[in-house]
Amino acid sequence: MKSLVLEQKGELALRDLPIEKDEVLGPHDVRIKLHTVGICGSDVHYYTHGRIGPFVVNAPMILGHEASGTVIEVGSAVTTLKEGDRVCMEPGIPDPNSRATRMGMYNVDPKVRFWATPPVHGVLRPTVVHPEAFTFKLPETVSFAEAAMVEPLAVGVHAATKARIKPGDIALVMGAGPIGLVTALSALAAGCARVYVSDLDDAKLAIAASLGPITPINVTRQSAAEVILKDTDGWGVEVVFEATGSPRAAATIFEALCPGGCVVMIGGQPDPIAYDAGAAMIREARVENIFRYAHAFPRCVAMIGSGAIDVKPLITRTFQFDESVHAFEIAASAPSGDVKMQIELPQ
Amino acid sequence: MKSLVLEQKGELALRDLPIEKDEVLGPHDVRIKLHTVGICGSDVHYYTHGRIGPFVVNAPMILGHEASGTVIEVGSAVTTLKEGDRVCMEPGIPDPNSRATRMGMYNVDPKVRFWATPPVHGVLRPTVVHPEAFTFKLPETVSFAEAAMVEPLAVGVHAATKARIKPGDIALVMGAGPIGLVTALSALAAGCARVYVSDLDDAKLAIAASLGPITPINVTRQSAAEVILKDTDGWGVEVVFEATGSPRAAATIFEALCPGGCVVMIGGQPDPIAYDAGAAMIREARVENIFRYAHAFPRCVAMIGSGAIDVKPLITRTFQFDESVHAFEIAASAPSGDVKMQIELPQ
Amino acid sequence: MKSLVLEQKGELALRDLPIEKDEVLGPHDVRIKLHTVGICGSDVHYYTHGRIGPFVVNAPMILGHEASGTVIEVGSAVTTLKEGDRVCMEPGIPDPNSRATRMGMYNVDPKVRFWATPPVHGVLRPTVVHPEAFTFKLPETVSFAEAAMVEPLAVGVHAATKARIKPGDIALVMGAGPIGLVTALSALAAGCARVYVSDLDDAKLAIAASLGPITPINVTRQSAAEVILKDTDGWGVEVVFEATGSPRAAATIFEALCPGGCVVMIGGQPDPIAYDAGAAMIREARVENIFRYAHAFPRCVAMIGSGAIDVKPLITRTFQFDESVHAFEIAASAPSGDVKMQIELPQ
Amino acid sequence: MKSLVLEQKGELALRDLPIEKDEVLGPHDVRIKLHTVGICGSDVHYYTHGRIGPFVVNAPMILGHEASGTVIEVGSAVTTLKEGDRVCMEPGIPDPNSRATRMGMYNVDPKVRFWATPPVHGVLRPTVVHPEAFTFKLPETVSFAEAAMVEPLAVGVHAATKARIKPGDIALVMGAGPIGLVTALSALAAGCARVYVSDLDDAKLAIAASLGPITPINVTRQSAAEVILKDTDGWGVEVVFEATGSPRAAATIFEALCPGGCVVMIGGQPDPIAYDAGAAMIREARVENIFRYAHAFPRCVAMIGSGAIDVKPLITRTFQFDESVHAFEIAASAPSGDVKMQIELPQ
Repeated sequence: MKSLVLEQKGELALRDLPIEKDEVLGPHDVRIKLHTVGICGSDVHYYTHGRIGPFVVNAPMILGHEASGTVIEVGSAVTTLKEGDRVCMEPGIPDPNSRATRMGMYNVDPKVRFWATPPVHGVLRPTVVHPEAFTFKLPETVSFAEAAMVEPLAVGVHAATKARIKPGDIALVMGAGPIGLVTALSALAAGCARVYVSDLDDAKLAIAASLGPITPINVTRQSAAEVILKDTDGWGVEVVFEATGSPRAAATIFEALCPGGCVVMIGGQPDPIAYDAGAAMIREARVENIFRYAHAFPRCVAMIGSGAIDVKPLITRTFQFDESVHAFEIAASAPSGDVKMQIELPQ
Repeated sequence: MKSLVLEQKGELALRDLPIEKDEVLGPHDVRIKLHTVGICGSDVHYYTHGRIGPFVVNAPMILGHEASGTVIEVGSAVTTLKEGDRVCMEPGIPDPNSRATRMGMYNVDPKVRFWATPPVHGVLRPTVVHPEAFTFKLPETVSFAEAAMVEPLAVGVHAATKARIKPGDIALVMGAGPIGLVTALSALAAGCARVYVSDLDDAKLAIAASLGPITPINVTRQSAAEVILKDTDGWGVEVVFEATGSPRAAATIFEALCPGGCVVMIGGQPDPIAYDAGAAMIREARVENIFRYAHAFPRCVAMIGSGAIDVKPLITRTFQFDESVHAFEIAASAPSGDVKMQIELPQ
Repeated sequence: MKSLVLEQKGELALRDLPIEKDEVLGPHDVRIKLHTVGICGSDVHYYTHGRIGPFVVNAPMILGHEASGTVIEVGSAVTTLKEGDRVCMEPGIPDPNSRATRMGMYNVDPKVRFWATPPVHGVLRPTVVHPEAFTFKLPETVSFAEAAMVEPLAVGVHAATKARIKPGDIALVMGAGPIGLVTALSALAAGCARVYVSDLDDAKLAIAASLGPITPINVTRQSAAEVILKDTDGWGVEVVFEATGSPRAAATIFEALCPGGCVVMIGGQPDPIAYDAGAAMIREARVENIFRYAHAFPRCVAMIGSGAIDVKPLITRTFQFDESVHAFEIAASAPSGDVKMQIELPQ
Repeated sequence: MKSLVLEQKGELALRDLPIEKDEVLGPHDVRIKLHTVGICGSDVHYYTHGRIGPFVVNAPMILGHEASGTVIEVGSAVTTLKEGDRVCMEPGIPDPNSRATRMGMYNVDPKVRFWATPPVHGVLRPTVVHPEAFTFKLPETVSFAEAAMVEPLAVGVHAATKARIKPGDIALVMGAGPIGLVTALSALAAGCARVYVSDLDDAKLAIAASLGPITPINVTRQSAAEVILKDTDGWGVEVVFEATGSPRAAATIFEALCPGGCVVMIGGQPDPIAYDAGAAMIREARVENIFRYAHAFPRCVAMIGSGAIDVKPLITRTFQFDESVHAFEIAASAPSGDVKMQIELPQ
């Protein structure tokens, strides 16, 4: 009954790590046997750096928060799930009594507890107890592997929701990493006629271009704004998604944007960025700044289940649980041909 | 150089009908040679009844308003089109000085002049002069036949836009006629994970079910609300589109709607309908009532062009222009296996 | 330690009625000594008819749900309130685990428990235990009497919020009863430049006209649509609030509405109303249907506290608690010069 | 028949300057005799610097764009105005054929022609010809002086509209100059319960505090965020309006903002500002960037006319036209006790 434990920066181990308090099943909780867990950039970052901003790994912590599994026990008040249900789980649990949560914006509740964010353990472990409200039943058409993609997809779907895309809009997604790609898929599913994706890396752009009506732009060779303004008779795109986290990219968010358009800031920025307020004003740009997601999981499950979104091309490698440490070593090397690596737990 | 003229109720003729004032090319106009024109239910209704509500055919009138063609001449101030461009055209021309038009809601301008609505002629004729602003260039990926589908599709896209669909929503489209089908396609393209379509006619429902993740419901055998509430654990659908124009259907619009959901009224209703305000309130339903479309044509062209929407399965029969009268006779018989019939003009 | 008990239809008594389970103070609860309770039309209706729709008075029930008071005890987890705080209370308590509640729409949660709605007791009694989350501290500038007006005002503020009023809009409020008047005040506070109020009763209209830039229209003598369309050069009002609950009024909601305008349905309607879908479509009307309110109480407290809304003119009579039965008899006679009667409890 | 002509940077003259092409009255135009013109900061800036960004005074230019007057002649197609009507005028005239204009966003049309922006003349002159569509009739309750305040007020009203204020919101307006003050008035009129105004200058803050439920904060002595977070139990304000144009202030726009709140950028910024994306994301802030106004003039006229907004306290000095040069000299000295100076033309 081992877990994948980040002992400290740079040191991973597969070992027993009992977590007694997480074992208590409340009336509104379910117990889930984990099946598949994706490796996120944040997991890798804790491994390689031991911290992300104010969150520091001061004690051994289990990694992993992109997860699917099977319900093996349900609390006394649970009504929507039963033993044997295949599920995926939302990794952040807000305080139900906070003001933001009551307003429906639980993702911006500062008291949210999020898997694999110190001091909260992740789910590369045998089982987890989780609230029914954040556990979502899978239809037969959604595999465990796809279900473990719901968490990153939810970021893209939340971004596309905030953008309030109108059918037939055209978008630019800056960045062809995993979040850029799920954002491009989400933008298309949410109504975009087509999407531009910009990046520095041709391998990533090639993957992007294979996913639908997506035009890749390598910004080392072309200006995204020039390409787009030429294609659109000088009008621009209705939505720009910033998914690079690069200050240099963030300084250009308005260049390709049409009058009345919307920019969605997704990529984290440790320092203030250079914001061209003049360019924003002349277009009356709306800028939405997002943080994770809210109410997106059942939407993602429904779209994967119906075929509206296909995440399978993004799952580029699968490891067994006993290869976990090796998997993280590979992930830490950032191979450009890979989008998402996943780990399957023993069933 | 003949046109298809509705001489009076029940009498069609292919004959010359010169329209001098429509031949004047203003600086902001283009002259278009017509290529393909779809037959709309309203065209058929003028043919069979001689009127629609307050609009009465008192003089010979050319039919047809779902049209594509080729630019053959441009006005002196035209900048976005040139001779030879393949185009489709928006059939309503508003007064640029009306208050609604200036606010961007030109479709609700009471002074709008709309093709094939007495006393304005339609476009089953060799050429037409039209404003550049309402003429839209086609990419190579959009055929003339598809382009002549933009007009009905625009109704569905406008309805889906007004609904403000969020990605992963589930919708019910009431009615599997041409407008119901374009609405279902638009709802899916606009972000719905899947769509229910309800109708009385199995043949129409079979077509609907072939178009994507669409669940047909024959309301002569099943209650749409029962099916949907069972499927969704009692929650309901986020959006209901009323596309039947039937008072009986309109009386049920809230039954399958979830809390906070939206109903879009599309189908025309000559008389007041029975509106269950109690059912609407208990859900805090939002009801959007739409009239044609605005700013939707370039969106439709973009979505057909990218493959985001495929209208080809809806084009079930094509006639040559000299068969036009025959085509209208068939259309007037309302064959249930047909969705959209089109007429190709001589080039 | 008496309460005002509706023994059965038509029979009120001031007597002891112990409610043991309501006395238990949970960690997130506060205990409140009641100070002022307003008499609502629904209280009177239970008194005179013994039921409202499906809610039937089958056992003795304490009346009253428009209330203010003083905190006298706080639960162990309470952080925002303390003993001695003057407060007002939201009378509906939703299930925190329902889907609608989690989305922030707790008012449409079917499991909500609402004071003085059978079988839930109201608060014309000495004390009540209530969740901290639905208890709101009053600033010094808000009296207990004003605070007991927050509940009805919240309906108007919620309606005005749903209408998404833009500054400078003009509105029509149909109905000059208590809810019509708080809606008119809310519409003005929410940005309307001015408001029309229509009713059948000159006394009520005279009160309305005294409250701000409000134009009264007696619909027994004038057509509201004619007056408004004349004043606005044929354009109409941006928002219509239906606050009569009369089917006859509800049949006219679109007549004075401008293109792109919004109707808010507030008044309850036991039967389906005649909805002029054609009139709604030609204007592309948006219809919002509301149910009570959500997240409105702190907004109301803030607006009364700053003087943005003045509810004092609406409080037309105050009774002491031992006159309660008499107060209800007067209220049941529906005196047209009265807007809101309140009862003060012994302190 | 003199005009106030800016001959070149720093040199003003009252002299004849015939403008023939502006004298032609088209069918949709009216001719207006000017009555009152306010002095805007941009007028003063052209006087003192000879340019604003890319707009350079290369030839003598008449100043003034905040104007009211009387219609003295109407074009043949004019329907809403007649000789003798008292009016105010919107100073920007867009190209009716631009894409942004057709969508209703005429203010972001790059082809807009704006009074007193080189090479377009302003209206400190006897008469002007202007489109009916941008000329607004005044009710009797609005004076010429108030009407000349509509132009700056429109900026505040547009900002408040874009913010989508909900009734009972609390706002912070950064900056107590003329635009900050009209924004504070607009925010209150648009539904805010109360407003904080921050500035460096006590004299300006004293004027702000006199205008309604407004709390002044002198940022040389207090942190606006600290004051606000203390007052609001750590929640913050729902809306922040940036009306200083100061990069230092702009770097702090998210500090006092609540989760899910909105920032409106009003003040022009010649250089990129430091945008704290992390602070924006953690709150899921929405940032609206505005440019002048659209569709706001009739709203402003209605609100001044009904008393919903009182601009009279902002008009601190009035000059006669023959004192114009002196008035500009005073304005250029930026007296801190003045908000708006106006010039009355001979009638």
